[in-house]
Amino acid sequence: MNASTQQTGVALADVVQVLEDLYPPATAQSWDRVGLVAGDPEQQVRRVLLAVDPTLDVVAEAVRTGADLVVTHHPLLLRGIHSVATTSAKGATVTELVVNDVALYCAHTNADVADPGVGQALAAACGLAATQALTLAEDQELGRVGELPTPVTLRALAERLADALPPTAGGVRVSGDPDALVQRVAVLGGAGDGEFAAVRRAGADVYVTSDLRHHPALEAREEARAAARAGRPATPYLVDAGHYASEWLWLPGLRELLLSRLDVEVEISSVRTDPWDLVVGARPDEDPTTDHPVEGDRP
Amino acid sequence: MNASTQQTGVALADVVQVLEDLYPPATAQSWDRVGLVAGDPEQQVRRVLLAVDPTLDVVAEAVRTGADLVVTHHPLLLRGIHSVATTSAKGATVTELVVNDVALYCAHTNADVADPGVGQALAAACGLAATQALTLAEDQELGRVGELPTPVTLRALAERLADALPPTAGGVRVSGDPDALVQRVAVLGGAGDGEFAAVRRAGADVYVTSDLRHHPALEAREEARAAARAGRPATPYLVDAGHYASEWLWLPGLRELLLSRLDVEVEISSVRTDPWDLVVGARPDEDPTTDHPVEGDRP
Amino acid sequence: MNASTQQTGVALADVVQVLEDLYPPATAQSWDRVGLVAGDPEQQVRRVLLAVDPTLDVVAEAVRTGADLVVTHHPLLLRGIHSVATTSAKGATVTELVVNDVALYCAHTNADVADPGVGQALAAACGLAATQALTLAEDQELGRVGELPTPVTLRALAERLADALPPTAGGVRVSGDPDALVQRVAVLGGAGDGEFAAVRRAGADVYVTSDLRHHPALEAREEARAAARAGRPATPYLVDAGHYASEWLWLPGLRELLLSRLDVEVEISSVRTDPWDLVVGARPDEDPTTDHPVEGDRP
Amino acid sequence: MNASTQQTGVALADVVQVLEDLYPPATAQSWDRVGLVAGDPEQQVRRVLLAVDPTLDVVAEAVRTGADLVVTHHPLLLRGIHSVATTSAKGATVTELVVNDVALYCAHTNADVADPGVGQALAAACGLAATQALTLAEDQELGRVGELPTPVTLRALAERLADALPPTAGGVRVSGDPDALVQRVAVLGGAGDGEFAAVRRAGADVYVTSDLRHHPALEAREEARAAARAGRPATPYLVDAGHYASEWLWLPGLRELLLSRLDVEVEISSVRTDPWDLVVGARPDEDPTTDHPVEGDRP
Amino acid sequence: MNASTQQTGVALADVVQVLEDLYPPATAQSWDRVGLVAGDPEQQVRRVLLAVDPTLDVVAEAVRTGADLVVTHHPLLLRGIHSVATTSAKGATVTELVVNDVALYCAHTNADVADPGVGQALAAACGLAATQALTLAEDQELGRVGELPTPVTLRALAERLADALPPTAGGVRVSGDPDALVQRVAVLGGAGDGEFAAVRRAGADVYVTSDLRHHPALEAREEARAAARAGRPATPYLVDAGHYASEWLWLPGLRELLLSRLDVEVEISSVRTDPWDLVVGARPDEDPTTDHPVEGDRP
Amino acid sequence: MNASTQQTGVALADVVQVLEDLYPPATAQSWDRVGLVAGDPEQQVRRVLLAVDPTLDVVAEAVRTGADLVVTHHPLLLRGIHSVATTSAKGATVTELVVNDVALYCAHTNADVADPGVGQALAAACGLAATQALTLAEDQELGRVGELPTPVTLRALAERLADALPPTAGGVRVSGDPDALVQRVAVLGGAGDGEFAAVRRAGADVYVTSDLRHHPALEAREEARAAARAGRPATPYLVDAGHYASEWLWLPGLRELLLSRLDVEVEISSVRTDPWDLVVGARPDEDPTTDHPVEGDRP
Repeated sequence: MNASTQQTGVALADVVQVLEDLYPPATAQSWDRVGLVAGDPEQQVRRVLLAVDPTLDVVAEAVRTGADLVVTHHPLLLRGIHSVATTSAKGATVTELVVNDVALYCAHTNADVADPGVGQALAAACGLAATQALTLAEDQELGRVGELPTPVTLRALAERLADALPPTAGGVRVSGDPDALVQRVAVLGGAGDGEFAAVRRAGADVYVTSDLRHHPALEAREEARAAARAGRPATPYLVDAGHYASEWLWLPGLRELLLSRLDVEVEISSVRTDPWDLVVGARPDEDPTTDHPVEGDRP
Repeated sequence: MNASTQQTGVALADVVQVLEDLYPPATAQSWDRVGLVAGDPEQQVRRVLLAVDPTLDVVAEAVRTGADLVVTHHPLLLRGIHSVATTSAKGATVTELVVNDVALYCAHTNADVADPGVGQALAAACGLAATQALTLAEDQELGRVGELPTPVTLRALAERLADALPPTAGGVRVSGDPDALVQRVAVLGGAGDGEFAAVRRAGADVYVTSDLRHHPALEAREEARAAARAGRPATPYLVDAGHYASEWLWLPGLRELLLSRLDVEVEISSVRTDPWDLVVGARPDEDPTTDHPVEGDRP
Repeated sequence: MNASTQQTGVALADVVQVLEDLYPPATAQSWDRVGLVAGDPEQQVRRVLLAVDPTLDVVAEAVRTGADLVVTHHPLLLRGIHSVATTSAKGATVTELVVNDVALYCAHTNADVADPGVGQALAAACGLAATQALTLAEDQELGRVGELPTPVTLRALAERLADALPPTAGGVRVSGDPDALVQRVAVLGGAGDGEFAAVRRAGADVYVTSDLRHHPALEAREEARAAARAGRPATPYLVDAGHYASEWLWLPGLRELLLSRLDVEVEISSVRTDPWDLVVGARPDEDPTTDHPVEGDRP
Repeated sequence: MNASTQQTGVALADVVQVLEDLYPPATAQSWDRVGLVAGDPEQQVRRVLLAVDPTLDVVAEAVRTGADLVVTHHPLLLRGIHSVATTSAKGATVTELVVNDVALYCAHTNADVADPGVGQALAAACGLAATQALTLAEDQELGRVGELPTPVTLRALAERLADALPPTAGGVRVSGDPDALVQRVAVLGGAGDGEFAAVRRAGADVYVTSDLRHHPALEAREEARAAARAGRPATPYLVDAGHYASEWLWLPGLRELLLSRLDVEVEISSVRTDPWDLVVGARPDEDPTTDHPVEGDRP
Repeated sequence: MNASTQQTGVALADVVQVLEDLYPPATAQSWDRVGLVAGDPEQQVRRVLLAVDPTLDVVAEAVRTGADLVVTHHPLLLRGIHSVATTSAKGATVTELVVNDVALYCAHTNADVADPGVGQALAAACGLAATQALTLAEDQELGRVGELPTPVTLRALAERLADALPPTAGGVRVSGDPDALVQRVAVLGGAGDGEFAAVRRAGADVYVTSDLRHHPALEAREEARAAARAGRPATPYLVDAGHYASEWLWLPGLRELLLSRLDVEVEISSVRTDPWDLVVGARPDEDPTTDHPVEGDRP
Repeated sequence: MNASTQQTGVALADVVQVLEDLYPPATAQSWDRVGLVAGDPEQQVRRVLLAVDPTLDVVAEAVRTGADLVVTHHPLLLRGIHSVATTSAKGATVTELVVNDVALYCAHTNADVADPGVGQALAAACGLAATQALTLAEDQELGRVGELPTPVTLRALAERLADALPPTAGGVRVSGDPDALVQRVAVLGGAGDGEFAAVRRAGADVYVTSDLRHHPALEAREEARAAARAGRPATPYLVDAGHYASEWLWLPGLRELLLSRLDVEVEISSVRTDPWDLVVGARPDEDPTTDHPVEGDRP
């Protein structure tokens, strides 16, 4: 931070311009709501806080640390609101931002598709260099797919990824034979259980995404098992990296980009916005490939 | 098993009649697809296999163990199919059932609402005795809510539940202060992230369900935190027990019911149909309530 | 205003309670958005400003006059918003309210149907005493219909109403023979051109409402003229009192109600939120019942 | 009128051909219903009556003056009818046309976009020469926008327009500072309150259209006022010229076109189909820019 | 016809009143369009023509025979029309009615459900006395079902029905074993292939209706054959009596009703409005129950 | 059948490849469901049975005659199924196929548009040589239209077609003057009453299709009669050739194609899947063009 910035900062309008050069709003999906959510284009920005989600704790951190602007991946107001009264969480968050003169800017699906962006950060954490789009959505590229330099076991891929992710209670879930070799990897930040068909079309050995629910995940695995019955590999295997964790990977690169283009301070939020605080009863090493005889009523 | 059954068995039509007395099809939701999925009412049933999901492995177990009928919670054909060719997993499963003369019967949302049923099995595993309906869906009761005899910590509740559940790689995820006391508990088997409003209306301290995705879970927690800013407790806390695991709890009771009403053998499948085989990188004891200073780019 | 109020005021939550007793939110239409739009239930209210619309000028008046709460008939956020940045009028209005600690409360279709409420204020301005509901919408009464003590000419009714309304550039528009006698009067505050069928069913001689567009108004008049060809009266005649003006009539009564129930100051906004500033070229006395021969190209 | 026409006239099919050359049906919007509404292509046409709306009075004028064909801008049967019994206004109008052998032809959105057409007639009345399309709807041009030779005050523009329009009870409504200078003018005949976004994109100082309702007009003005707070002009101003009056401007030009192409008589209807007969209580010169202190309850 | 009627007739409004007493419009389905389609309530009616369909030939017959009113079962304008120009068949029909002062009244689904009505006329032609509703549609009874006094062969039922029907080129089509005995008969005038489920629920041996298309008819027969495989009868059999013919049966009873209530002449149209003029290549006695060996390519 | 085939056959996957070369699945309509409905790609095919519909009798014939594959025009599972239990006809058919190792393949709208295909087989049976597409549906050609070498009477055309069709109880229905000359013929296999507008646009004298219902057929004839009133011919005439019969024409050509490309036996099913077994009361030679005076109540 140099002296001039400390006094005058940069106009919010100029920060917005830099962000929209990086993440053009026209590249967002039609259902998405990106851009400036709170703030006045003429207000001054001296310090920026980056986070995955615009939670009350993140806003409190911004106020406490003197940030003038919060940039998040997830929109605060994806669904329109009809009140900013503090009786709802959305209203309390908006009120907290406005009364403290903290602006909020969201780059969501437009950041997913950017180069560099969320998809590429996740691909890099998996060890992928050159990648292609996994599929298209509304004419925008969605997800990445590429080849590892050499095959690795599914377990090794998951462990490499876990090392790159921020810590979470739940960690990284894996479906498939941990010792199978994988090389062609598809990745999609955020909730990915609607894109299994694209993953199969891409011929991926493994699909790294998050928020996989029981039914879509199990159906995808069943398709893989049906393929295995016909002599083909039982792929794609699945890796659920966690929604917060997989998208957090985008923040360090964003920090570098902003520092290089604007005379402002930029920090990554220390708030973990993953909702899960604790896990009990997990058998992380359980071997699922063996059928356990039922004794009494319990497997 | 007596001698006569071993030779002749019970007509499938009679087994279906017992199941439909327990789980009347008219109590299923309109979008659901329950009842007999494969089989001929006149075929004989000597051995029944119970499972959460009708996977290829479950059908293989039925064939291997000589079961004539598989009863599952999840429908095989919730979405209609247009082919039973073995080129799809659904087609391969149907073909495997039909060529091996194994019938399939599904009791889904009608089993959720039955007394006893899926909701009550989950409530019992949480330590709840008397419960009421959490909400109504199409005039059917959905979920349960009740009070523990004495308050327990959120962590203790999760651990008690984990002890009752079948083993899974991921275990039980918890959102909220592990040391907070809870007494009023809402439960809903299966995917529960559409019912937060009902949980709040019911005044529950904690909501036990599964398949909670990032956005709905985080928004529910934010509403709780906004309430806490106004001096009320930051509830409901969340417990995600796993979709497979939470619904598996229904099977032992079903086994007892069938054995008491029909002269057939009944076994619970030894196949774990939870899609997750492995977890890496989890920090189950991570304390999320402390903000960690950012050092470099990683929290 | 007594001394204690000047210092401490009334909690916003208590003012909201009084407003919701007068105008229960459950009586609003399902598409409507009523209630507290900005503010914290715990903040103190000493002065309330009443207006038809929550415009930027009304908020500025509130700030200038020290009002803590604005109560309006029209919702600020009927359509949900995704941003409160000051780059849109809605965002600028929300921001202005929040940064100045001015709360906003809207009572719209729930105020229309209240007793006393918007519909009754308009009926009273027309000279109607006892009235009945004009029709039902979602099981709520909508509009009023009643009989004048004695028949008056259409022109006299319009002039009486104009005297009661706040001044506007456009005044009151009348369709029908000004000298025809009317006695049965239907009224509906706000935009009324969707309720002609109800007005005909009610047997009204004249329909007093606002925002009547060319096509519905002309079609309603044509139905009346077709009736006249069959020997029945060419009714209902139409009176368009102006949207702002007809709903403004509710404010004085609301002021009295609040003063009687709460120890706060209450003023009616001096801002005319009717959008029209000027009218030119009107021929208010033009006699439309005579066909003017075309001379050249102009009637 | 020459002697031969008086006796034999022109086949309706030929008149239709001329009209469809001027206003190709394929240029109408998909929801519109244009073309021949009543009549037999082989019947003879000697006299044509032009009007904005096909009302019962217009049809009576056609019968009284011996017109064989009425050409209107507004469709009689935009919504389909299921009966022509005289118990409805639409049925009575159709019956009156058919029993009197009077044909009806409507050119609506295809006349709006024609060159010359409704949009251009309104632009000319505002003093615009060269214009461009305001926007596109279903790939057809909609509305016009252009620059006056020199800036004029908003009031002067409205007065010029009022002089060109046929007389109506309500005249021309204006929203904005009457003394502000305007040069770039957008025009749209008929109901225009769905096109404010296009008007802003076009950078118009003023928008001349009709049937503007309270909410859209006020929201458009609020957007302009929010812009003014950021130092930009509070435009677009609004001019509501009246639906009937603004579209009547098309008739004289149509009369000339038909006379030049067909050997028939053509007259413009003397019936004013604007529904409004009288205005009372208007304050046309009211100055809205001053806040009037509330004295008692009335502004 | 007495002397007074010949001169003055009955007001159309009075005829309409009698028809609406017989067939209350409120008992029609919501999608239907019944009632007066053309005419003036004050015109005089001396002669009424009854027909199934309001075709051009039927209107021409009305004109030729001096009928003032045509009453049909099928609506002329079920889909709304936007023009009565003679360039379309609907427009030509409306024009022909209006210029000849012939009124048109349609009683469709309200006549289907009346007692007596279309459904009962068809039931009577099948030999049924007491019947019940086959099903409900929008709370109105739809179709009839009842028992013949004694069982008859399917062929005999079809022949009895054919004797009662007006002559058509195509006759009565039968699906099922001609020698099978039937007693419980469901009937539905008009197009019946959406009601097979109701027919099965009613336990009918045979379903008499019309306009049965290949796919629904074949699927219904397949369900019957699947039932036969399980030892139940292969019912319901199907009888397609023809749409025009099956509904024509209502006309004689209607004629009697009108003659008994109104002092007018009433005749049944001599126009056969069934669209089919000729049948070639039919093998009416073909025995379908034998599989014919393929010789060359033809069965 | 040669010796090698009898022992080893052809892999189902290879037969499917040949069928998909002939009838690419991508040329089917989006709502259609074509391709392999039952079977395993690796199973061996020695004998193929061809039929219009996959009925229980057709499957029984396949089992009885040792066919390994049934190829039909109509899909078995156009609507998705949720059960293959034998309690429904669809379930019984699927079960019968699977337990007997009989595969099923359907080529429907992709066979309609193929060259050669269903449309061309029907055109050839009418005597048409070169034809063009009647219209487009989802960018695929639908139906054919062409000119006969010389005009023939409508009756002669119908008789020629009837000679080519497989025998049915109902034969070929004709609407129009049997002695009128026709030359331009439109054909569409299957249910054709949605394409009258295309037939008129194509200028066809006659439309050969099937499953024509009363209302669309009569409305099409009325349009033709309205045209006749204006001096144009009363065309198109209609020929309903029967749904089963008109599509059966495709099977012989398909048999030749398969025999020429695959070393398998191919037979056409001897089962007539037209649902109609018997016709009574037909007056095939009835002359509809004469109005019969009503005597008593019967025409």
